[in-house]
Amino acid sequence: MKAVTLAAIDEVALRDVPEPRIEQPTDAVIRLRAGAICGSDLHVYHGQMGAMEKDYPIGHEYVGVVEEVGPLVRGFRPGMRVGGSFFSACGECDACRRRQFTQCREIQLFGFGARFGALAGSQAERVRIPHADHTLIALPDEISDEQGLFLGDALTTAYFGVKRADIEPGMTVAVVGCGPVGQLALECAQVFGAARVIALDLVPQRLAQAEEIGAVPVLADDDAAKRVRALTGGRGADAVVEAVGSEATLNLSLRLAAGFATVSAIGVFPQPSVPILIGRAFDRDLTVRAGMANIQAEAAATRELLRAGRLHPERLVTHRMPLKDASQAYALFARREAGKVILNA
Amino acid sequence: MKAVTLAAIDEVALRDVPEPRIEQPTDAVIRLRAGAICGSDLHVYHGQMGAMEKDYPIGHEYVGVVEEVGPLVRGFRPGMRVGGSFFSACGECDACRRRQFTQCREIQLFGFGARFGALAGSQAERVRIPHADHTLIALPDEISDEQGLFLGDALTTAYFGVKRADIEPGMTVAVVGCGPVGQLALECAQVFGAARVIALDLVPQRLAQAEEIGAVPVLADDDAAKRVRALTGGRGADAVVEAVGSEATLNLSLRLAAGFATVSAIGVFPQPSVPILIGRAFDRDLTVRAGMANIQAEAAATRELLRAGRLHPERLVTHRMPLKDASQAYALFARREAGKVILNA
Amino acid sequence: MKAVTLAAIDEVALRDVPEPRIEQPTDAVIRLRAGAICGSDLHVYHGQMGAMEKDYPIGHEYVGVVEEVGPLVRGFRPGMRVGGSFFSACGECDACRRRQFTQCREIQLFGFGARFGALAGSQAERVRIPHADHTLIALPDEISDEQGLFLGDALTTAYFGVKRADIEPGMTVAVVGCGPVGQLALECAQVFGAARVIALDLVPQRLAQAEEIGAVPVLADDDAAKRVRALTGGRGADAVVEAVGSEATLNLSLRLAAGFATVSAIGVFPQPSVPILIGRAFDRDLTVRAGMANIQAEAAATRELLRAGRLHPERLVTHRMPLKDASQAYALFARREAGKVILNA
Amino acid sequence: MKAVTLAAIDEVALRDVPEPRIEQPTDAVIRLRAGAICGSDLHVYHGQMGAMEKDYPIGHEYVGVVEEVGPLVRGFRPGMRVGGSFFSACGECDACRRRQFTQCREIQLFGFGARFGALAGSQAERVRIPHADHTLIALPDEISDEQGLFLGDALTTAYFGVKRADIEPGMTVAVVGCGPVGQLALECAQVFGAARVIALDLVPQRLAQAEEIGAVPVLADDDAAKRVRALTGGRGADAVVEAVGSEATLNLSLRLAAGFATVSAIGVFPQPSVPILIGRAFDRDLTVRAGMANIQAEAAATRELLRAGRLHPERLVTHRMPLKDASQAYALFARREAGKVILNA
Repeated sequence: MKAVTLAAIDEVALRDVPEPRIEQPTDAVIRLRAGAICGSDLHVYHGQMGAMEKDYPIGHEYVGVVEEVGPLVRGFRPGMRVGGSFFSACGECDACRRRQFTQCREIQLFGFGARFGALAGSQAERVRIPHADHTLIALPDEISDEQGLFLGDALTTAYFGVKRADIEPGMTVAVVGCGPVGQLALECAQVFGAARVIALDLVPQRLAQAEEIGAVPVLADDDAAKRVRALTGGRGADAVVEAVGSEATLNLSLRLAAGFATVSAIGVFPQPSVPILIGRAFDRDLTVRAGMANIQAEAAATRELLRAGRLHPERLVTHRMPLKDASQAYALFARREAGKVILNA
Repeated sequence: MKAVTLAAIDEVALRDVPEPRIEQPTDAVIRLRAGAICGSDLHVYHGQMGAMEKDYPIGHEYVGVVEEVGPLVRGFRPGMRVGGSFFSACGECDACRRRQFTQCREIQLFGFGARFGALAGSQAERVRIPHADHTLIALPDEISDEQGLFLGDALTTAYFGVKRADIEPGMTVAVVGCGPVGQLALECAQVFGAARVIALDLVPQRLAQAEEIGAVPVLADDDAAKRVRALTGGRGADAVVEAVGSEATLNLSLRLAAGFATVSAIGVFPQPSVPILIGRAFDRDLTVRAGMANIQAEAAATRELLRAGRLHPERLVTHRMPLKDASQAYALFARREAGKVILNA
Repeated sequence: MKAVTLAAIDEVALRDVPEPRIEQPTDAVIRLRAGAICGSDLHVYHGQMGAMEKDYPIGHEYVGVVEEVGPLVRGFRPGMRVGGSFFSACGECDACRRRQFTQCREIQLFGFGARFGALAGSQAERVRIPHADHTLIALPDEISDEQGLFLGDALTTAYFGVKRADIEPGMTVAVVGCGPVGQLALECAQVFGAARVIALDLVPQRLAQAEEIGAVPVLADDDAAKRVRALTGGRGADAVVEAVGSEATLNLSLRLAAGFATVSAIGVFPQPSVPILIGRAFDRDLTVRAGMANIQAEAAATRELLRAGRLHPERLVTHRMPLKDASQAYALFARREAGKVILNA
Repeated sequence: MKAVTLAAIDEVALRDVPEPRIEQPTDAVIRLRAGAICGSDLHVYHGQMGAMEKDYPIGHEYVGVVEEVGPLVRGFRPGMRVGGSFFSACGECDACRRRQFTQCREIQLFGFGARFGALAGSQAERVRIPHADHTLIALPDEISDEQGLFLGDALTTAYFGVKRADIEPGMTVAVVGCGPVGQLALECAQVFGAARVIALDLVPQRLAQAEEIGAVPVLADDDAAKRVRALTGGRGADAVVEAVGSEATLNLSLRLAAGFATVSAIGVFPQPSVPILIGRAFDRDLTVRAGMANIQAEAAATRELLRAGRLHPERLVTHRMPLKDASQAYALFARREAGKVILNA
């Protein structure tokens, strides 16, 4: 079958790779309907995750149709349309039983190579899904393929980050960084009852996009904290979602935060350690959270919200291309000329 | 000054009554801009709260302008436009310090007579407000008088009931009873992130009104629980708000509820004791809550939500009449020919 | 093998019954080390659960050693010492995934007959355990057999009820009813940080037993609510655990409760409906909970607390008898002449 | 009157200073019964808080008797025995109304000089207490002076930090740093239901002291994280309390933490910014909190726990000296030759 593989640094190629098959009785194999390119795929593209094995499919955002299931799969049958988490979790270990799937003893990420479990990616005509009962997400008719693509990573990641910001209805919530995940966080903050959502970014188009869905745009320059204080009677934001993953945005988040607020970082930080304004955290009694999104625990909520029409991640799609044009798609995305790029199988 | 008083059972009259004045250093006096008639005013109207003192103003939903404040009032000054809670609380006792204002040692309800603190009501040209710092709610420009009228009782009561239903985003929430407070509960359930809100009532117009704001209407007849199960894959509602105050609706709420759900009763029950389906509660691990709304603790949230345009209680207003026509207004409301009736000063 | 069966109303007998065997790949079979008689076994004994099938073992509190496991059991191996929940749950349905095991689609209670899943009881030399991975509880060396007997029902039931009473450290907690489960609730309330635990009962010995572990004894007569108010500066108990299951004790619980308190009912009510003081609940903004204990979700906590020596349920054991003397044991227990009775295999 | 003042860097002296008096109608003046020296007093002692005004009393841990109250003080009368928070808060601003007293617009710390509100300290024969109703804590007879000294800072600070560690009963909790506040955190962790409390420090005597109250001692050297993993089956601590305030201990705390755990930092960090292991926080979905203790909100709980005999901070007292010997007391404490030093008036 055909799959998108890392041909060289900054270059992907469609290659013939071996067909996946059921290896464990809890596996499923799905036939791809559509994939999407995620910001974190660029880490692979730029070679930051190390070399990938030859003919190793990359990608981890997918919607497909179940083709085959192992004998111990209970909830899925061939023919079902599905999305799925960007990682597989066993569902049986102590962590999974506590519904802390990111802490699964056997966690594997799709398409990130050996360091993350050596699981083939999903930008391929067919995809093997380990622990299908705990990894796949059934898609009801009300959810389109394009919406379903967001369930297993971008949307539920945003939702997870926003949930961990301890929002209560009526609050003013700031989202620092308005790329795709940040845009989705703006929507999720509204779902959690935010009275006002303040969108911070340096890119005017992103701020304009945020304003379209009702957020208050604020330029994230040196005066950003001052501007947020002005908007909140001096108080600051009651909750802050950091959607970038940099020292600058994390500390801006701390400076924006009102007393006893939570700063929830969704962004992936490239470095192992960052300086944070601990004095500010102390003075303001702040809570700071970071973390990989616990997709398996949260996707039931995002699925119901999508189905009910309360979230519209599909508005972020700017390009739809066939899987065979993955090379151009990655190049376009890497040049930051696209929002969400969909690869149709 | 003129005030609406109980002239006889089922009859109110506009009478000349003594002007209120600052009696305690924490009092304020406001000049009324508008009042509204609440369902619970009908208990007074029908004589169910006992006889009222002669020339005793009734009513407890109000918006006005501060005219005078006692020397210890800090947050309000003459000229400020305000709404306020339907009850006053001292802000200083142990209960108030825990923000449990309904449990205040000195609680007084506006316009309900001696049993509830003997505090004159607000359907009057001027109103004395005890403990003004803890009873009044400042109205920003974005909130109209008609919206502000809902802050001190109906809207925040609905909000309190909905908050106590333990809703998490993505849930299916049922609201049993779609009178004015039930309608507001439907909106509030959306603010708390409900994916779906199911509206139950026996009156078709109320169901139609619920459908207009996106709720799923379900006739509250004997098959109601079955219908809700059909809508929820057999599971029931994840959270239920009871907005009537009767044995039948409370137990319908228990029958609708999914395992581990909360049933939050906003309605005022006329009887001291009602039979509840304790076996059902046990089998389903249910939580049942009832309670008078803790307005002073919740109005900051409802005010911010109103200001931000996330709630629209004013859609419930069907009649606007001058205060002097209170007699016709009450009669109309008592015949259930009106939604919310506003009395303009 | 030998098993305790219901020979007639108010009479159990040790009979030869067929050996249990692995029927499903997720089953285990254990060899009993010890069982205990629970208050709810008396419902079976008195014939209140209907006739039991001939040669049907009763009982649901057990500690044993795993003898055999089905091919899909992962966490248990022959030779392991175990306790287990009084009911089996599949671990795979939607309810189990949410960790609401009492709501499992395939729930079966040990030893209660056809209405509760027709699962043979555990007062037998061997016991079949469905869904062993989700039903059994591994016992570390620090937990004795006698302690382990409490894990799968009495102790974790008390813990579940106390957890649902919303206790915060420093609170005054009342426990209404000081039979075995009530005694365990007193201990659990201390674990949750109660500053003071008030024990209410009509039986002086039970009050004395409560006092021994540090509770404040209060006679549960008509003046009980008044006494609790006197002990709490007029305020009432901050949280109440009802451990009887009667209308009188439930409403006493409501009358004891401070504003915004939770009343958590552990007791099993014989009737489907009971009148509750809804007016009191409304005035005091109370929360009332009932429910079957979610053992599978809570036993990890009670096991760790037992292991650490923070709970001592074994103090309630008054009689230790061989399984073959089950007839005398039930008779003794039914006459209320015993605390906890252990049947050693 | 006599007061302890900063005579020079590393030197305090007892001086005659002006008597305090009621300056605001919400003030009280108390006569000291006893004070204590806190670790943070050493910052003043070592000159790290800048120069103190001449004849400016220092200190902020106190128990006394009310001598005089302003006309607006409601809850205190001359003759009452009291402790009090180490800071005053107005009780009226938005932050205080939300019970976030550390964020009070008019916060003043006792005895820390101009940067912290220029409020005279409490190591003096008499002390002015601003906003007495919100700053003082009434002491019941069951609480001794020595216990009461811990209520307004050390004990409630430990309690606040432990509360913010999100402990649930049955958890394994690590406390990093076993100085006085760390020792109190160990006790508080037990109150919150920890099954096991692991005490980490480099000083053997502190570990021995921790072991005496039931904690598991672990040397906080380079292998500390490994040791905690060994004690927890590889999992790490379910909650971590950091009671030092250094980069090393904060990051050790992150390395000890199990997935989804909270690290709550009580320690005061001398630097405004510290590097934290954000990659670890991301991988493990951690929560990190820091903050000044919200004494006014938490002291009701610690007072009830003290009164009930569930906490024993007085075990930390090693020296009792008269106020006039403050100079020797500070020297002793600064040389780390003492635990808690009490200065009796």
